[in-house]
Amino acid sequence: MSKLIRVQLGTGEIKEEEISKDAVLLAGRALTSKLLAEEVNPNCDVFGKNNKLVLASGLYAGTTISCGNRISIGGKSPLTGTIKESNAGGNVAYKMGKLGIRAIVLEGLPKDGSLQILHISNEKMELIPAEEYREMSVYPAAEKLRQQFGDKVGISMIGPTGERRSLASGIANTDKDGRPSRYCGRGGLGALMGSKGIKAIVLDDTNSKGPKTTDKAALKKIRSQLNKEILSNEALGRFTKYGTAGMVDITNNLGALPTRNFSRGSFDLAEEINGNKLHEVITQRGGEGNPTHACMPGCVIRCSNAYPNDKGKEVVAPLEYETIGLVGSNCGIGDLDAIAELNYRCNNLGLDTIDMGGAIAVAMEAGVVPFGDGQGALKLMDEIEENSWLGRILSSGGVRTGQVLGVKRIPAVKGQIMAAYDPRAVKGLGVTYATSTMGADHTAGQTVRMPIEHHSAKGQVEASRKAQITNTMHDCIGTCLFINGAFANNPEWLGNLAEAIHGVPCTYEELQAIAKKTLLLERDFNQRAGFSDNDDRLPEFFYIEENPDSKTVFDVPEEEMRHLFEFD
Amino acid sequence: MSKLIRVQLGTGEIKEEEISKDAVLLAGRALTSKLLAEEVNPNCDVFGKNNKLVLASGLYAGTTISCGNRISIGGKSPLTGTIKESNAGGNVAYKMGKLGIRAIVLEGLPKDGSLQILHISNEKMELIPAEEYREMSVYPAAEKLRQQFGDKVGISMIGPTGERRSLASGIANTDKDGRPSRYCGRGGLGALMGSKGIKAIVLDDTNSKGPKTTDKAALKKIRSQLNKEILSNEALGRFTKYGTAGMVDITNNLGALPTRNFSRGSFDLAEEINGNKLHEVITQRGGEGNPTHACMPGCVIRCSNAYPNDKGKEVVAPLEYETIGLVGSNCGIGDLDAIAELNYRCNNLGLDTIDMGGAIAVAMEAGVVPFGDGQGALKLMDEIEENSWLGRILSSGGVRTGQVLGVKRIPAVKGQIMAAYDPRAVKGLGVTYATSTMGADHTAGQTVRMPIEHHSAKGQVEASRKAQITNTMHDCIGTCLFINGAFANNPEWLGNLAEAIHGVPCTYEELQAIAKKTLLLERDFNQRAGFSDNDDRLPEFFYIEENPDSKTVFDVPEEEMRHLFEFD
Repeated sequence: MSKLIRVQLGTGEIKEEEISKDAVLLAGRALTSKLLAEEVNPNCDVFGKNNKLVLASGLYAGTTISCGNRISIGGKSPLTGTIKESNAGGNVAYKMGKLGIRAIVLEGLPKDGSLQILHISNEKMELIPAEEYREMSVYPAAEKLRQQFGDKVGISMIGPTGERRSLASGIANTDKDGRPSRYCGRGGLGALMGSKGIKAIVLDDTNSKGPKTTDKAALKKIRSQLNKEILSNEALGRFTKYGTAGMVDITNNLGALPTRNFSRGSFDLAEEINGNKLHEVITQRGGEGNPTHACMPGCVIRCSNAYPNDKGKEVVAPLEYETIGLVGSNCGIGDLDAIAELNYRCNNLGLDTIDMGGAIAVAMEAGVVPFGDGQGALKLMDEIEENSWLGRILSSGGVRTGQVLGVKRIPAVKGQIMAAYDPRAVKGLGVTYATSTMGADHTAGQTVRMPIEHHSAKGQVEASRKAQITNTMHDCIGTCLFINGAFANNPEWLGNLAEAIHGVPCTYEELQAIAKKTLLLERDFNQRAGFSDNDDRLPEFFYIEENPDSKTVFDVPEEEMRHLFEFD
Repeated sequence: MSKLIRVQLGTGEIKEEEISKDAVLLAGRALTSKLLAEEVNPNCDVFGKNNKLVLASGLYAGTTISCGNRISIGGKSPLTGTIKESNAGGNVAYKMGKLGIRAIVLEGLPKDGSLQILHISNEKMELIPAEEYREMSVYPAAEKLRQQFGDKVGISMIGPTGERRSLASGIANTDKDGRPSRYCGRGGLGALMGSKGIKAIVLDDTNSKGPKTTDKAALKKIRSQLNKEILSNEALGRFTKYGTAGMVDITNNLGALPTRNFSRGSFDLAEEINGNKLHEVITQRGGEGNPTHACMPGCVIRCSNAYPNDKGKEVVAPLEYETIGLVGSNCGIGDLDAIAELNYRCNNLGLDTIDMGGAIAVAMEAGVVPFGDGQGALKLMDEIEENSWLGRILSSGGVRTGQVLGVKRIPAVKGQIMAAYDPRAVKGLGVTYATSTMGADHTAGQTVRMPIEHHSAKGQVEASRKAQITNTMHDCIGTCLFINGAFANNPEWLGNLAEAIHGVPCTYEELQAIAKKTLLLERDFNQRAGFSDNDDRLPEFFYIEENPDSKTVFDVPEEEMRHLFEFD
């Protein structure tokens, strides 16, 4: 059976609870949100003793099902005040699955403000003093952790900005090769982990057996069929070749690529930062560069990549679309080298690239550095590294940066900066930004690949509803959204896989029902935290300033959005 | 008849509207809130073209009824996102009354980011370029304005922090002697005025006749009776002698004096900053010092004062309780000279001393300077003056400062720092902080002088309800709260005075009804802006951390608070 580990930071006590058979299908976001909804006061002080940080692995964790090892991390968000789940790839959930751990809950506050490491192996669970890691950046700290605990561990960790409780800080997770670059970036969960005084959670699965798969033959058979579906899927093939950066051309053509603080939706330098260009630079430079790479054990899509500098040395891995859109075009920066370096700096400092792209852009709007100035943006990263006051402002994310600098246009919902899609030009995603339980978030209900007229207000609520349910379902299973297409003809496989692993009946319909229940539970948490229907909207300027490239404003009727969470 | 002046900043057009006879009793906060509720989208971008800044004089404006010339200023608050009305004494409403102006509405945004002065006299209304005033501090700018427009003008103006759209900036109004020190401090309305590009509104009442009082004999008679009531009222006599600083002993004894970022409610140095000490220092030093001073024409309470330095030169006038509590004890500073200097610096920069006291205290909690370090706090004022990044952080108020610095305990409701009463020890005011339409605000419903057990949860909702209605009524009339006691035996005078001036029937009951209607209108605005019952609460730490001096937590049942706005 799977276990739930509770770590009480106030006393140092670590307790194990067994997950009962009837709760075995609650995983990933379904579990983080259920625990938070039941155990956390929605009005708690976010850095107080009553907030909790919950890590949960998914239903397929510990197997090598492609895209099946996402790690979900949740808490009451320091950034948004809402319930929050942020998930990432990498090897952490895999290690948890191998160790038979479904969830880890960090509770209370350390008495003395000390910094610790939570180390879990098959033999023991312990809190280890970690003062020598204080203010250490993510990459060197991960390196040191691997020296201390072995090369094969999975690590969830924070950078200096998490320790400082900076609101744009995320939680970095190691990928299958040990890079601490798979980010649960959104919602300031790094700051919450920092408030718990935990620098890193280190998972060592040596001698662990993993899930006691009930029906190994069924698992093997479906996995093989699924991989075939993936490899024959044309859209997924583009992911393999171009990574997520393939999206640049799509959004640029739609007028949906955020440009210069969401003042327009097409970027004159889009061809310098698109999927073709990225692929070309990586393949031409060679060396440590790699245009296609798997972040999780078993993934056959391999949308990740490794971006090299002109000497072939790896700068950052991966370089993804959201970063390109926020740190690139939204800052007017049309230079992949600068974007890659900014990405690396954010990762190393422990920051969410989306909120930081938003922060840099509003700072640019305030005149701190000019739009398009990549070197200027890099100097802002120096400010954060040095923990200067300007660095403090920026690392508190786009909304606080905008508020502190007196900026009029701040592209955010519920305190969180929008991802790299202008909501006036991908209106379904605009509906998701407005209504999501997570604040502005593209993974909460992505509609950009749906066959709908993205500039029209029509049908967008329905599209967003469908996407929110599907995306939440994958978050609850612990699967990457990108695999959804591969299940298109055989959605029942999603349940069959869980059934094969856990030995309890599981249907696609049940997984959908868990997703819907999770959304409503989250919405209830937010309502108890003070959010109402009237918070479900975009900043005014999206309604009244036309995006000059899509020639649209956001005009999905509010009244229609209010019915989004009325599920059948 | 009274006029409403609309200034469209986008076109420079200034229009006059006549106030119809049936609307003549809508003044002060009743008028600012009604205009905002009817004309402003509750979800507008606060610095966008659709927010408005409204100044409204009260029912007695332009007469010399004691305490009868408060100026109300309102807008959608940049600090809280709620509707906001902040009022102050001084001579601005008096000048408006003399000029026959009930309200001034600033609309739209200046096209070119220019800075202007709105100059209104009996002869003309004009927008005058004011680039030479840019970044000019409040006192020298007021001096220059008086040189430009004459000694007798009334001025509402902002400092450099308002121009910078800093969220803790207020609007300074001249007192009857021309000092620009009567602050509409709360809610960041200075930033809103700054976003409109208006440095100052200058009112010249030369050759103005004032209100055409219908029944001069009645007015004269009630005014004389009222003044007698004031002068024979013992409590008001203490105001005359000690100013508002007389409150220090009361709250310190209750355990309600905010001390070191609301970590306790009694201050070991209280005797160094209380009313006695203040009176003693002012009288001993003499010179420009003055223990009792009227801020408004006609006021006979004269709770204001002028605080001199040890050479007898005026440092600041007035030095008030809220500043002493927030900038003093709440920062651990037990030194009136340092507090007076901090007060002056805030005034001169255009900042609300309450939110700034909160900001300095959370910065102290974050270790920026130590608690109790008056000189350190003054250096923080230098940072704001220099517009350094730390200065930007601090001038965005206590909540953003706390968020940017990662502070756990931020004593605020709806983004606004609490006034100088710990809600665990004056629980009725705690109810007001939680439920007020204005965020944490003592003037929204003050209960500290009510004959109730302040440490008990019992009866506090009823007390707060009563106080909120009474306080709102005075805000709508344009009278100072302090005069309420003088009407205790003759509440009908409140209506009689309005009737004598405006020639329309007016009863006390009608004024109460206007207050209640105003509260419900404001609450509706806030609900449309996304606020719900679940926002009506204090930060968690007040519920779970005992105030060691009152030995209480805040424990007024939430369920009871939800019925506060159910008026009979």
